[in-house]
Amino acid sequence: MTRQARSYGRPEGEPPDIDHDLGFERLIFFSDAVFAIAITLLIIEVRLPALPDHPTDADIVAALRATLPSIFAYVLSFATIGLYWLSHWRRWRFIARVNERLVGLNLLLLGLVAFIPFPTALIGEQGDHVSVVIIYALALSAAGIAGPLTWLYAWRSGLAIPTVSPLYARLSAIRGFAVPVVLLGSLLFLPVVGTTGVELMWLLIAPVQVLLNRLVRLRTTDLSSA
Amino acid sequence: MTRQARSYGRPEGEPPDIDHDLGFERLIFFSDAVFAIAITLLIIEVRLPALPDHPTDADIVAALRATLPSIFAYVLSFATIGLYWLSHWRRWRFIARVNERLVGLNLLLLGLVAFIPFPTALIGEQGDHVSVVIIYALALSAAGIAGPLTWLYAWRSGLAIPTVSPLYARLSAIRGFAVPVVLLGSLLFLPVVGTTGVELMWLLIAPVQVLLNRLVRLRTTDLSSA
Amino acid sequence: MTRQARSYGRPEGEPPDIDHDLGFERLIFFSDAVFAIAITLLIIEVRLPALPDHPTDADIVAALRATLPSIFAYVLSFATIGLYWLSHWRRWRFIARVNERLVGLNLLLLGLVAFIPFPTALIGEQGDHVSVVIIYALALSAAGIAGPLTWLYAWRSGLAIPTVSPLYARLSAIRGFAVPVVLLGSLLFLPVVGTTGVELMWLLIAPVQVLLNRLVRLRTTDLSSA
Amino acid sequence: MTRQARSYGRPEGEPPDIDHDLGFERLIFFSDAVFAIAITLLIIEVRLPALPDHPTDADIVAALRATLPSIFAYVLSFATIGLYWLSHWRRWRFIARVNERLVGLNLLLLGLVAFIPFPTALIGEQGDHVSVVIIYALALSAAGIAGPLTWLYAWRSGLAIPTVSPLYARLSAIRGFAVPVVLLGSLLFLPVVGTTGVELMWLLIAPVQVLLNRLVRLRTTDLSSA
Repeated sequence: MTRQARSYGRPEGEPPDIDHDLGFERLIFFSDAVFAIAITLLIIEVRLPALPDHPTDADIVAALRATLPSIFAYVLSFATIGLYWLSHWRRWRFIARVNERLVGLNLLLLGLVAFIPFPTALIGEQGDHVSVVIIYALALSAAGIAGPLTWLYAWRSGLAIPTVSPLYARLSAIRGFAVPVVLLGSLLFLPVVGTTGVELMWLLIAPVQVLLNRLVRLRTTDLSSA
Repeated sequence: MTRQARSYGRPEGEPPDIDHDLGFERLIFFSDAVFAIAITLLIIEVRLPALPDHPTDADIVAALRATLPSIFAYVLSFATIGLYWLSHWRRWRFIARVNERLVGLNLLLLGLVAFIPFPTALIGEQGDHVSVVIIYALALSAAGIAGPLTWLYAWRSGLAIPTVSPLYARLSAIRGFAVPVVLLGSLLFLPVVGTTGVELMWLLIAPVQVLLNRLVRLRTTDLSSA
Repeated sequence: MTRQARSYGRPEGEPPDIDHDLGFERLIFFSDAVFAIAITLLIIEVRLPALPDHPTDADIVAALRATLPSIFAYVLSFATIGLYWLSHWRRWRFIARVNERLVGLNLLLLGLVAFIPFPTALIGEQGDHVSVVIIYALALSAAGIAGPLTWLYAWRSGLAIPTVSPLYARLSAIRGFAVPVVLLGSLLFLPVVGTTGVELMWLLIAPVQVLLNRLVRLRTTDLSSA
Repeated sequence: MTRQARSYGRPEGEPPDIDHDLGFERLIFFSDAVFAIAITLLIIEVRLPALPDHPTDADIVAALRATLPSIFAYVLSFATIGLYWLSHWRRWRFIARVNERLVGLNLLLLGLVAFIPFPTALIGEQGDHVSVVIIYALALSAAGIAGPLTWLYAWRSGLAIPTVSPLYARLSAIRGFAVPVVLLGSLLFLPVVGTTGVELMWLLIAPVQVLLNRLVRLRTTDLSSA
């Protein structure tokens, strides 16, 4: 085995053009990895409060009950990041090429997604404070708004595949706003229903998302049967 | 090098159909990443208890002995997530297509897997409490049940490759229940053998899994030689 | 299903040559994963300071204000690792083969990138200390310098694709120095503007990077139109 | 867009055989992800000791000096996991197929690699205790021994590509023992040179690895020129 044989790589002399696939896949891969890490890191903020040295069964049950808000926050943020990843997955199937600006916008989106574990920890521990509820809603909405905007940029810059219709491009963006609409809309009710009420309203994300999905499906089916 | 040349991507004008592979691979990849992160995060819950400022050798040895339950929990949860990943790996080789519901079920499974580090930390630190033993068994079983259910949904919805026989589909699901059967079954013995006894029973996961694997192999070999 | 049928893999008997693609992709993949984990771990160092047992709204707001330096550090380090990943992504599109030395240099680069969460935590918590400012600038610059050096090694060792011109190789390396130039340059002003002043100067990374990108684009466009 | 069109996947009706590549790649990918996460998690155990509320510059410098053993441990464990990953990368280029036992052995190896952050934290904080030095050497050696054993199992079970000679198989295994040999060998000198002396001896990993690499290269070159 010669030294030559020990260098591994692509066939020599190939032009950069054939590397396009790898470049595109790396971008997707890097995005998936950041989503996956952010969503899995959420759990390390769920932990028992400090316990006495030899806790009784009652101490343990009380401590477990005290972690329920953190578990609620875990479920909520997991579902949200999951929905955001799903949107990313769905949209990038329609993106044909990238330029450096799209890569930059995607990095901004990833930075907002990777930030989510912090407000999640906050709301799990101090969710009865108005300031914390507002920060959580704003932080998760920021990531939720950056996703559709990135998609609209890609589409308007001609980076999407040509068969994407203007209607589909717009509907696909709208479908991504379920989380921000619920989170930001709920803040209007903060003076009336209080922090716990607002947090319960966030469970509306699921039905609103389903509704928006149906709407998009309906509009696009209308078209294809027309 | 023109601006055009600086945008990287797939050949222009290709229809969404050829992107299917990438979409499928991203889903698999995202799942693998969540499994890998959850399994590797387990170790950050293994840590020495608080020590005096200048600990003696005896202090250190005592502290190390105090981490043994956490290390036992690490081994148990690592093996469990490893088995769950192995099942996922084995089953998805037989899945040909996905729809959005299957993607949603898979996200639910990932959410249950990513939750495992929390009960693992619990049982490592407070494993002599009945409530903690029950929570651990329930949490790990939830993920263990969601896996086969996802597979059965995929198979019944015609998303599996056509060569999968009804018998194989069912056996493959049954094979996935080794962990939940042992974990939930052991809870019946809790009043008799106590928390430590139940935790030792969990070591039965390995032989039960081997047994189920042999059973599946036997039944499918019978068929192919028939 | 026979034993043979249960072993999965590549078609038998193929020589190592066709595995090159997988070997190359694993290296890229491993690098992307380390970048992605390091960039996403940054957030776990952003946390509220210790609070009294039943904090008032004022306590919470004060605590949130106290985390602002940590959030600033998060943004800065996220952008920096993002830029480093972007450079890695851009350069490795032009690398055709690897030898073990290049793999080693790449590991060194990854070790420096994976180190970044530590100085980021430092500067978020103790950013008003000269020693901490210096350590942050040195640590992030080390990773920023290792990137272009790895690229220059690859190019000089003939591991780049042949169409890379000497000018492009050099410009691509220079473009990678935006972060180290700003970070190290800012230290000269430490006696004049103090730690806060220096940290604000770090926001210059963005315009300096844009400037360098334009410079590279200009020089390479000159050539292609000549 | 019909329901049919919204299900994404592989072309229907394809037999499981063509999925082999994906199955193989998932295994490699999962392994890479665990290595990458374990290696990047090491840094979260490097942190400043507790500081007074308004620390002086001298407090900070003393605290930074106190983290030097943790940084030494980071470098050592990063290099070790890096070498283990490199061996995995090198060996799996020669593996053609997998069976479930090889997958199981690989999981065992990953479990030992994912464990490394714990002894790394230990040695960084309490590296002047004999018990901690022994645990670190044993834990890192366990992962270092599991790697070559996995490779030997694969080769003896006929899962390697056929062109791998018995000599190369053995040399490749030997090359993987550099870390265990140095770590375990150093323990013999513990009574003479003490914990600090032993830890400094661990720097011998680098030259021993280089030596073993040369030896393997020499022996295989002899053959090919014979």
